[in-house]
Amino acid sequence: MSDKQKNAISPRREEDFPEWYQQVIRAADLAENSEVRGCMVIKPWGYAIWERMQGVLDRMFKETGHRNAYFPLFIPLSYLEKEAAHVEGFAKECAVVTHHRLEMKDGKLVPAGELTEPLVVRPTSETIIGAAYARWVKSWRDLPILLNQWANVVRWEMRPRLFLRTAEFLWQEGHTAHETREEAEVETMKMLRVYETFAREFLALPVLTGEKSESERFPGALQTYCIEAMVQDRKAIQAGTSHFLGQNFSKASGIQFQGRDGAVEHAWTTSWGVSTRLIGTLIMAHSDDDGLVLPPRIAPAHVVIIPITPKEDSKAAVLEAAEALAKSLRASTFEGEPVSVEVDARDIGGGVKSWEWIKKGVPVRIEIGPRDLTQGTAAVSRRDRPHKEKDFLPMADIPSRMAGILDDIQAQLLARATAFRETHLKPIDSKEGFYAFFTPANSAKPEIHGGFALAHWNGTPEVEEQIKNDLKVTIRCIPFEESPEPGVCPFTGAPSRQRVVWAKSY
Amino acid sequence: MSDKQKNAISPRREEDFPEWYQQVIRAADLAENSEVRGCMVIKPWGYAIWERMQGVLDRMFKETGHRNAYFPLFIPLSYLEKEAAHVEGFAKECAVVTHHRLEMKDGKLVPAGELTEPLVVRPTSETIIGAAYARWVKSWRDLPILLNQWANVVRWEMRPRLFLRTAEFLWQEGHTAHETREEAEVETMKMLRVYETFAREFLALPVLTGEKSESERFPGALQTYCIEAMVQDRKAIQAGTSHFLGQNFSKASGIQFQGRDGAVEHAWTTSWGVSTRLIGTLIMAHSDDDGLVLPPRIAPAHVVIIPITPKEDSKAAVLEAAEALAKSLRASTFEGEPVSVEVDARDIGGGVKSWEWIKKGVPVRIEIGPRDLTQGTAAVSRRDRPHKEKDFLPMADIPSRMAGILDDIQAQLLARATAFRETHLKPIDSKEGFYAFFTPANSAKPEIHGGFALAHWNGTPEVEEQIKNDLKVTIRCIPFEESPEPGVCPFTGAPSRQRVVWAKSY
Repeated sequence: MSDKQKNAISPRREEDFPEWYQQVIRAADLAENSEVRGCMVIKPWGYAIWERMQGVLDRMFKETGHRNAYFPLFIPLSYLEKEAAHVEGFAKECAVVTHHRLEMKDGKLVPAGELTEPLVVRPTSETIIGAAYARWVKSWRDLPILLNQWANVVRWEMRPRLFLRTAEFLWQEGHTAHETREEAEVETMKMLRVYETFAREFLALPVLTGEKSESERFPGALQTYCIEAMVQDRKAIQAGTSHFLGQNFSKASGIQFQGRDGAVEHAWTTSWGVSTRLIGTLIMAHSDDDGLVLPPRIAPAHVVIIPITPKEDSKAAVLEAAEALAKSLRASTFEGEPVSVEVDARDIGGGVKSWEWIKKGVPVRIEIGPRDLTQGTAAVSRRDRPHKEKDFLPMADIPSRMAGILDDIQAQLLARATAFRETHLKPIDSKEGFYAFFTPANSAKPEIHGGFALAHWNGTPEVEEQIKNDLKVTIRCIPFEESPEPGVCPFTGAPSRQRVVWAKSY
Repeated sequence: MSDKQKNAISPRREEDFPEWYQQVIRAADLAENSEVRGCMVIKPWGYAIWERMQGVLDRMFKETGHRNAYFPLFIPLSYLEKEAAHVEGFAKECAVVTHHRLEMKDGKLVPAGELTEPLVVRPTSETIIGAAYARWVKSWRDLPILLNQWANVVRWEMRPRLFLRTAEFLWQEGHTAHETREEAEVETMKMLRVYETFAREFLALPVLTGEKSESERFPGALQTYCIEAMVQDRKAIQAGTSHFLGQNFSKASGIQFQGRDGAVEHAWTTSWGVSTRLIGTLIMAHSDDDGLVLPPRIAPAHVVIIPITPKEDSKAAVLEAAEALAKSLRASTFEGEPVSVEVDARDIGGGVKSWEWIKKGVPVRIEIGPRDLTQGTAAVSRRDRPHKEKDFLPMADIPSRMAGILDDIQAQLLARATAFRETHLKPIDSKEGFYAFFTPANSAKPEIHGGFALAHWNGTPEVEEQIKNDLKVTIRCIPFEESPEPGVCPFTGAPSRQRVVWAKSY
């Protein structure tokens, strides 16, 4: 790859967005498909991003009073049967364990030791955790229970896509049980706000928040709240959900307690989760035609220093200067932690190295060559700006300025994503306008449609169904409005309580 | 439970060690069996210990050049078939996924969507990771690959025991691939030393290290190195293993590369792992008849402050003093991190609270009552000493002295475990002496036998088999000896290269 090329990723976003997405993942070496249908291998750079997300979220969960625990991978079939809507929602797509042994038969391994009751690999853990809570809760004094689990889950997927939809994925699932309805409702909203804050402040994603319509609700929930991100093909990604489960699961699992008045009651429960899908969202929201773009607050490395060593006689001095700069950068802090620095001292061309780190999305690149040494400067490039742009800064100033540069990149990414969302979020009042908004002008580029539509809706699933069939557009969320503005449903002429957010989605 | 009772745990260790172990787990609220056969629920206090272990080990792995990644949960049956010894070792105890859907049939959920090729839930990941490495490695320049994975694995267990042997457990598995045999051998030993250091320095476990005999080797490995801990019933627990896999798995998976001389070669691989079994080891090694005892360097909380508030009028002042002390303790450090402090302000009796934290193993308890306030002191109790022992220290001195106290507890636990191991590790030179050593004097207390025997061995699996059948004793490891002392096998009279370690084990 030469310095003269225009972009590192082919095709570009506007040429073929889905293929561009795959190529960004490949170029940044984030993940790949395995030979096991729908299961991905998360490679070190991709996993390091997940570790950063885990670290921040885990701290936020603990600050809001939650602790971690771990529950079994397997769910007895009979547990799933207990909650009717839940069966309906999850039964279609489970990995089912039916045997517990393998035997050699005619030179081939075959399943043996059939289980009396098949086990399902958890698609989510409400039922198995509910069974534990039912054992633990006897009195109102045992409540609330505020637990989270970091785990893998499996949902069979017919059309897997790296990070966004995989058969196995990594996530966290919070599960809480409360004495009163109000307390559980407060918890549900609190965790939605944790997700919203995390998305905005760390991932630079200006997500929309709201409630799901009944047809998009978590199977078995009374209310599902969500954060929805707009990505660069103007589609929506549901990036996290928080569910108020009412007493549905506590009744199914038997989570009962003696209340303050002596009467036996069912607990009120919630669950909430985000997954490795966040990585896919991050990629689609911020990356460009040169590859991955990482917000500094979530990047596994903030800075890469690239020594340029064309001549043998100055090589040692350049490498020494690079290491010295790395050392003082590591002694400086960003967001209360040491600035994280990579030095790429490999003995290959500077251009090749530089492109590699551009594609990996590292927020700041610093090139140091023989000429910089004599001038006491270094070339600083920001990943949020065109790859050719360089600021030649005095070497001695770089450590003290780095936190400011990283802060500015973080702010720029959020501002850019916010402006993009504002541009492509439109109130629409007629059926024709709505259909036109979601119909691509060029059928070869189905991603170039309007974006998110704010339109009225009569509140019925029939209208949702019709629009989903016609346009593959769904209600992403019903925004929380203190004083909803009523109107008229453009599809039926019926009265509407408020505008809702419609979009195509992943 | 009253202050007058002698011990918190019934039965005591000497009465019934296996039952004592279960009761310690229950009293400390660490884990419990789920309704899914052999699968445990790890409760918050147990999981917090695992999080501490993960944190330390993860840092040690990264400092030795490893990165984390994540590989699929499922392994195609055909992968397992590729390595003959591996099949033999693992095929017997796998969870097998045969279907990917559930359907309602006559009001009952039944498995549907049969898979063309069944999938095995990973019992370990050599084969699935080998398939990935085979894709990634083309040239010697692609080596070494130094990855680790934190994951759950499943091995069907007929006699599960919390933490020590469960169908599903949590672990880390390192998998590395190298250009040369020597490099892989160095890696295998390096990671064994990481485990040994971790066990000694953090868990206060003076583990023995050595090589496994062929019959105890990991299925498919050329060499298996291990750390073996002695616990208080004088049995051994294999607490971690590091395997040199030679080219067995690279040949099975096709991890090939073009070497420096242009010839195509197979990579040399290693794998190494520790699991939640470490928690079981920790419990059995250090806990006493009052419950769990945690080494400070691995304890989720270093200190608990227990305000004693018998009178309403002094309550506020006591609570305030407790919070003030907590604040200054948190501002002090232990091992470079803030001292971790819990304040148990619950409005229940001080004795009840104190017993709870004793059973949970928190290294230091500090009681503050109305009288302490007037005297400016607090009662400090150490978990490594009898529960009634209290040092009345000036409140103002406690923060500056805490790191020293914690250091001392850590050192005492290691010293105690080391002395115990030395007492019960005996050279034995006759067959009669060996059989007597492992025969309990009282058949009702099978745990009271000699301990670890250092005896010669002719090197054959036949002798191992005989002794296993007669005494349930196996070779735990062949110690690394720079100049092994030859001798005579007491069982056969044949020459022996060196003494090996024999013990009963979990």
